[in-house]
Amino acid sequence: MADHRTYLIDRLEVERALTIADAVDAVERAFAAYGDGRAQMPPKSYLTFPKGDLRCMPAYIPEMGVATVKNVNVHPGNAGLPSVMATISVVDPETGFMLAIMDASYLTAARTGAAGAVAAKYLAREEAAVACMVGAGVQAETQLAALMVVRPGIRKVLFCDADPGRAETAAQRAAAAYGIESESATIEHGVPQADIVTTVTPVRSPIVKAEHVRPGMHINAIGADAPGKQELEPQILRGAKVVIDNWDQGSHGGEINVAVSGGLITRDDVHAEIGEVVTGRKPGRERPDEVTVFDSTGLAVQDCACAALVYQRLTADSDARARLAAVDLLRLA
Amino acid sequence: MADHRTYLIDRLEVERALTIADAVDAVERAFAAYGDGRAQMPPKSYLTFPKGDLRCMPAYIPEMGVATVKNVNVHPGNAGLPSVMATISVVDPETGFMLAIMDASYLTAARTGAAGAVAAKYLAREEAAVACMVGAGVQAETQLAALMVVRPGIRKVLFCDADPGRAETAAQRAAAAYGIESESATIEHGVPQADIVTTVTPVRSPIVKAEHVRPGMHINAIGADAPGKQELEPQILRGAKVVIDNWDQGSHGGEINVAVSGGLITRDDVHAEIGEVVTGRKPGRERPDEVTVFDSTGLAVQDCACAALVYQRLTADSDARARLAAVDLLRLA
Repeated sequence: MADHRTYLIDRLEVERALTIADAVDAVERAFAAYGDGRAQMPPKSYLTFPKGDLRCMPAYIPEMGVATVKNVNVHPGNAGLPSVMATISVVDPETGFMLAIMDASYLTAARTGAAGAVAAKYLAREEAAVACMVGAGVQAETQLAALMVVRPGIRKVLFCDADPGRAETAAQRAAAAYGIESESATIEHGVPQADIVTTVTPVRSPIVKAEHVRPGMHINAIGADAPGKQELEPQILRGAKVVIDNWDQGSHGGEINVAVSGGLITRDDVHAEIGEVVTGRKPGRERPDEVTVFDSTGLAVQDCACAALVYQRLTADSDARARLAAVDLLRLA
Repeated sequence: MADHRTYLIDRLEVERALTIADAVDAVERAFAAYGDGRAQMPPKSYLTFPKGDLRCMPAYIPEMGVATVKNVNVHPGNAGLPSVMATISVVDPETGFMLAIMDASYLTAARTGAAGAVAAKYLAREEAAVACMVGAGVQAETQLAALMVVRPGIRKVLFCDADPGRAETAAQRAAAAYGIESESATIEHGVPQADIVTTVTPVRSPIVKAEHVRPGMHINAIGADAPGKQELEPQILRGAKVVIDNWDQGSHGGEINVAVSGGLITRDDVHAEIGEVVTGRKPGRERPDEVTVFDSTGLAVQDCACAALVYQRLTADSDARARLAAVDLLRLA
């Protein structure tokens, strides 16, 4: 039998192969495939440990040519290692062979930023000019980078963070990266100015209040990722057009989970899953003054679409393949 | 940050590290942990492709020190590649870091053989002397090897196969390996002679009939692995003490699935899960003349226990680690 090798793709190779604009495009196509019912995405599986957990996320999008399984941990307070690390196994649907294993730490951040951007593309006003990032960590930076792809008219960004120094640093970096007006702000001052608000904090109780929200605003709620966590006052959800990525994940641990478990909103109060909006089954923004909220929990199809792109780019020809490390795990020869 | 490398463990390294006796021991401990409720094992996830499928099997056994996720495909009629290939990601529960990726093709065969052996240890008569393998493929060989670990008194083995030449070859190999009497036989002739019968065929309709079964016999039913498949006449199940590995998996696609879906047996007719027998919660064999059947579907905890052993042996000291290939996927440095 021929030599069958599995490519090993490290974080730097993934970064080289996948721009933020690529990720936005791939995630939009993933949402479309999911919305059209062409994608397979079994529920996430969880293993729980004393200090963290591991999530196992399989997905298959036929037109993308590969199936993927992402393993991603969450260990808050990991000493010497990132809290979140991820790998993706890329499998050939034709044979079941494992084509590649790639680091997915950057990819996970990129596809999460991309989801917010795709939501903004369909839900934020075209003329959106001011963005406010609530939380000024790494994911705020990625969310902004993706947002700039779909709303290049943004001319000002505000960063709000419990650590004002961190907000200031993020603002300086954004100014340098995009040449736009950029400053740190309190939530009270920053959010009401914004056309697009992105929440990327680890808080458990709402920090964005209904009084901060203005007509026409779009909010990407990214941070809530577990039962009991929320970043927005539930009244905001009740007054808004709410779009989620997936009902099971969102109602279990997304921004809407507290409001759903408290009976404040039901499935009927949710306007759509993002796949339905991207495929045109349901409308996105319909009026300039409506408030829209996207609750992102992160779908395995986003990982699949981005990993497919990375794999195909990095193995497109023999020169590209020669650059990659590889291992023959089966040893059939 | 320090260099964090993920070890790459190919099939030959796994074979070097894991003997069949090791696998039997590891699988018995896995069944015990599962029976005691100490193990985590979410349901298998499936992705389905035009020509096959991929199963994703996470498990965590705290006392074994690692969590694992096995990805295993089934592509019947794969050209140039095995129909079944598997890899296991080994994750550190303390940090979530991926410690190793190993080929699990041999490991899967070994842990499947080991499950039959553990069942025989608790369910077959101590003085069992004759084994009959129904099906003479690779898994028959592994099942016999594991059986010889727990019932070294076996002095004769019979192989039954639709291809008599294959049965003859298997018999010759077993004679050479164990120095025991070994021959090919028809099912009608072979099964009734045996104290322990192991079915490892891909058939969909029963090939072992009730008339072939003798009092005191133990049967390991290994081959049925999908809804609608069975190797034993259902009357055998109705008259036997039936032990399964897991109700959800067994009733869905194990040997009992056809009898369960047809209403011939219910959960109450199943004596125990093997974990309950290994931990002493329920008895194994109680009388010399009872017929016992073990329905094996394969549990992720079996993979976890075997992979933990392989990982720990191959990374026990710096000399051992130096032998292994490794990759720095995160590139934190």
